Amino acid sequence: MQPGNGTESPVNPGLVLDMLNAYQRTAALKAAIDLDLFHAVGEGPGDVASIAQRCSASERGIRILCDFLTINGVLVKDEAGYRLTPSSAVFLDPRSPACLASIAQFLGNPAMHGAYDNLAEVVRAGRTNLPGDGTVEPENPIWVQFAEKMAPMMGPMAGPLGKVVLDGKSGPMRVLDIAAGHGLFGIEIAKQNPQAHVTGLDWAPVLRVALDNARKAGVHDRYNMMPGSAFEVDFDGPYDAVLLTNFLHHFDRPTCVGLLQKIHAALRPGGQCATLEFVPNEDRVSPATPAAFAMTMLTTTAAGDAYTLSELTSMYHEAGFKGTSGHPIPMSPHTIVTGHA
Amino acid sequence: MQPGNGTESPVNPGLVLDMLNAYQRTAALKAAIDLDLFHAVGEGPGDVASIAQRCSASERGIRILCDFLTINGVLVKDEAGYRLTPSSAVFLDPRSPACLASIAQFLGNPAMHGAYDNLAEVVRAGRTNLPGDGTVEPENPIWVQFAEKMAPMMGPMAGPLGKVVLDGKSGPMRVLDIAAGHGLFGIEIAKQNPQAHVTGLDWAPVLRVALDNARKAGVHDRYNMMPGSAFEVDFDGPYDAVLLTNFLHHFDRPTCVGLLQKIHAALRPGGQCATLEFVPNEDRVSPATPAAFAMTMLTTTAAGDAYTLSELTSMYHEAGFKGTSGHPIPMSPHTIVTGHA
Repeated sequence: MQPGNGTESPVNPGLVLDMLNAYQRTAALKAAIDLDLFHAVGEGPGDVASIAQRCSASERGIRILCDFLTINGVLVKDEAGYRLTPSSAVFLDPRSPACLASIAQFLGNPAMHGAYDNLAEVVRAGRTNLPGDGTVEPENPIWVQFAEKMAPMMGPMAGPLGKVVLDGKSGPMRVLDIAAGHGLFGIEIAKQNPQAHVTGLDWAPVLRVALDNARKAGVHDRYNMMPGSAFEVDFDGPYDAVLLTNFLHHFDRPTCVGLLQKIHAALRPGGQCATLEFVPNEDRVSPATPAAFAMTMLTTTAAGDAYTLSELTSMYHEAGFKGTSGHPIPMSPHTIVTGHA
Repeated sequence: MQPGNGTESPVNPGLVLDMLNAYQRTAALKAAIDLDLFHAVGEGPGDVASIAQRCSASERGIRILCDFLTINGVLVKDEAGYRLTPSSAVFLDPRSPACLASIAQFLGNPAMHGAYDNLAEVVRAGRTNLPGDGTVEPENPIWVQFAEKMAPMMGPMAGPLGKVVLDGKSGPMRVLDIAAGHGLFGIEIAKQNPQAHVTGLDWAPVLRVALDNARKAGVHDRYNMMPGSAFEVDFDGPYDAVLLTNFLHHFDRPTCVGLLQKIHAALRPGGQCATLEFVPNEDRVSPATPAAFAMTMLTTTAAGDAYTLSELTSMYHEAGFKGTSGHPIPMSPHTIVTGHA
């Protein structure tokens, strides 16, 4: 989507104009989701008048919005009107089980956007200008929203993560799911292994979302809640596996190493720690999606980052882990990184 | 820059994530301009520590910002650090005479961004949710900012526009520059033809910017000011040429035709009207930059649009013009459209 490192087209002021207007793309996708437009286009017919009627909106507004979404690759336009692209059919049509539309509510949270109103000041200071330590402040309510709204994005990672962690193993096992959020990662282990017992650790209001999901999956009798901070609670080991998803990126290296040491101490010998992260290449500017995630960490945390595989490996090793390896998840910007105690 | 109509990459949720986070790109470019970062990188050295020192900013902030700008194609990164791209050297380094950095202040105007806070409502209503008729409200102060801040973007169009309008003609001529703004288009005619007299029409506070520019160009003795609305003032013809730049897109077709008729009546027989516009192809979704401009017209006006060449031609003809033709400006998203009285 972005031009990328050194792959620029000929000199053209359009690049500057497009980048200064990029905020319109965020607004357009949110508006289309709010209007249930991908549902209307997915069902068809795809002419402006029909879509406008379905969305209870003006024809001028729908025509300009649909053209803008076409320019940005989430619709296709031909003589008959507009159609979904393969990606928007899967990820934006609410009829699709993989629909991600709800993530707009988390990613569009004004509390997160506010950090960008004076980004120059954030760059000067080198840390979030949100209150305290930003998103990692104790009991920050955005994590309830994360658990509720980001589940459709994180759910598809649960299968691959479960497969890596179980790796053919069955029988009784104890699993600790740190920063459990929606709980889907631990729940997947409980589903794949009927003798697994899972403990979800997160702020108490967040764990209510996880427990709800455990109930829906029918595994709540093997799901325990451990409310509190991962840095403060007693993990109550030993565990066969610890899941550490979407968490390390919020903290600086010493904090990450300290937490990994605490996890190492709570694992049985041979037990496994599995992190799920945005892991850019060592150049830190590719692939675009995981590399760009460092900006979110700059604006919302005091010292977090999108760590490379060599950085994560080094943290694991310093904490005493062996056999660290990275497992990119196909068709996703995420990577699983594992280490053994 | 954008994926475009039907040219999508394989199914990937990254597209949704990137679009929901696109607002970060706007913030990043504004922050880099605020920090004078393109100046620092342009002069070098391009390592993080040197740039951070030059920008009085943290190394963490600069490193993450520079990586983000690299991902988005306005910097290049290699072992030695960061460098400007060909486009950012021309359009973002303040040492370049073509630097566009000031346009961030117009395009980043909170009054314009506010229209995007509830874009779904704008699409429902089919018109701006700004007060009154949005940016075309009489005496709207944003046009002073446009005249001051957008001049670097519009200046390079003045040469090509002057060439098309003069077309080898010399000798005494009268030119009316409607919505003169910075005045650069009319001033260019006065510079190219020492016997041309130019009348700039715009709101009075805007014309002060134009007159300043006429003075700097040494043509103020042949520059007259006509303050007021193009729809209300007496044009005081006949003219040899009328410039109508960045104006028709704010209005609906009947309003455009009415204005073109008034212009036709103020031209000598054979005289020329020249518009400068974002003109998308007939599919309205390419090229990306002029096509996407329709979104700005949806959010900031009651009934404006990015008109195609066939639509503009049809308006010209209905107003009585002959020999209408389009002249794309190389290396720019703009097109000149001319018609003869």
